Amino acid sequence: MEFNQRLSAICSESQSLLCVGLDVEMDKIPEFIRDKKNAQLYFSQTIIEATLPYVAAYKLNTAFFEVCGGSGWEAMKKIVAYLPADIIKIADAKRGDIGNSSKMYARAFFDEMNFDAITVNPYVGFDGVAPFLENKNKGAFFLCHTSNQGAADFQKFSNGKSRLFEIVAQQVRKWNVRDNCGLVVGATYPQEMKQVRDIAPDVPFLIPGLGAQGGDFALAVSYASQGGGAIFNFSRSIIFASSEKDFAQAAGEQARQMRDQINRHRTNKFNQGKKIE
Amino acid sequence: MEFNQRLSAICSESQSLLCVGLDVEMDKIPEFIRDKKNAQLYFSQTIIEATLPYVAAYKLNTAFFEVCGGSGWEAMKKIVAYLPADIIKIADAKRGDIGNSSKMYARAFFDEMNFDAITVNPYVGFDGVAPFLENKNKGAFFLCHTSNQGAADFQKFSNGKSRLFEIVAQQVRKWNVRDNCGLVVGATYPQEMKQVRDIAPDVPFLIPGLGAQGGDFALAVSYASQGGGAIFNFSRSIIFASSEKDFAQAAGEQARQMRDQINRHRTNKFNQGKKIE
Repeated sequence: MEFNQRLSAICSESQSLLCVGLDVEMDKIPEFIRDKKNAQLYFSQTIIEATLPYVAAYKLNTAFFEVCGGSGWEAMKKIVAYLPADIIKIADAKRGDIGNSSKMYARAFFDEMNFDAITVNPYVGFDGVAPFLENKNKGAFFLCHTSNQGAADFQKFSNGKSRLFEIVAQQVRKWNVRDNCGLVVGATYPQEMKQVRDIAPDVPFLIPGLGAQGGDFALAVSYASQGGGAIFNFSRSIIFASSEKDFAQAAGEQARQMRDQINRHRTNKFNQGKKIE
Repeated sequence: MEFNQRLSAICSESQSLLCVGLDVEMDKIPEFIRDKKNAQLYFSQTIIEATLPYVAAYKLNTAFFEVCGGSGWEAMKKIVAYLPADIIKIADAKRGDIGNSSKMYARAFFDEMNFDAITVNPYVGFDGVAPFLENKNKGAFFLCHTSNQGAADFQKFSNGKSRLFEIVAQQVRKWNVRDNCGLVVGATYPQEMKQVRDIAPDVPFLIPGLGAQGGDFALAVSYASQGGGAIFNFSRSIIFASSEKDFAQAAGEQARQMRDQINRHRTNKFNQGKKIE
């Protein structure tokens, strides 16, 4: 099944557009598990168990695992293996190189680690990112308009008619011939999100910036959930909801609340018409 | 010492502008060492021993190690540790994320693995790449105009006066307050390289595309080696020069030839006035 079709089916089935970001920063996990062997893996598994009922996707930001070296890399692989089949697994890796190297990245994340999708930086251009699109079952979310302040530095570079992030959205829409392209659009810029939605109505969005980064909930969800749909990522605000013994329960409760809050604001309804809790 | 100063000093000392790219693709290393334990490490060490007299820098492309999982990651770390102190070690990682994540990448590559420099994708903007620039001893080479055909897709997006890669070059020059910024400029586009050199005369270049990719040697070296200087990367054409028992010797011979060929075409001379072999 094409990646975007599968993403949509899983969102319908789970009645959720929530993505939980496993940014497992060692200094931020509860102190009493920090010294455990395989602390990243243990923490992630515990968070996954608590949040799974409310989630459509998990996103692993490679930075937080790479900083732990080879064992961090192995933890990432084990976390993906731990996740059930009917959940989308995204490598938030922001890779993008010339073709020969991107081919290796695609093999590393899709084949060796079994991620379903990866975030990709489009700067190198089509031939550089093409290896991420060859398998229709695997998806690529391209950085379009990011959630940070510096997004304006280059992404808003304009020729008077269009800005770079709009050109990226136009191109990615064209690249979507196998229905496996998505776009990363930060919730902190709802107007730009609306513009991207107009350019690429049929492409799913991966939306960072709603949690700790403070994006506008109602606007972001209403714009993004139209058309090709969207998943909304929360990392720190869910996984570090508590640093006490109740950290898993607190994460589960936050995930439930975020799923419900997203569902209240979404404009399009789930295909299957199940009742939303 | 500021990274760019150190790079320049090491180029002078070694009388070389050659960077060898350790793109250690398992399918391409000689068959008789492919099944060895730690084959990536063994192959890299053997290549390093043979090429070291001719080299100013080594560049490790993370894609080729990540595809080998946790053990690939560990091999990368061991290769960096194996390299002597007076050689520049570049992580060709093309990272770039929002600040919180880039901080982790900087820690992973600079502090945990002891690389001297990293390649960075500028798309996210300044606040996203700033963590790579905080330590003046560590350098960041920003993708500016890449060597691939698709470089034109976004990098040549123009407002009529400037194109995106020129805007990137302008910005990176401004970011260079600690003298630790460089630019990645593909040898396959010598005219664009000249334009980047005019915009950023004092910034060192990392030049891919001269070997297997077939860039114009004389033009690229003459444009790039002006001003802030440049190092020229060769990967496959050196490290896979032979797949027989003589692979190390062949790599050393190729490295020597490439160093000499670069030195013949360079326009600025080494500071120390040593005789070039």
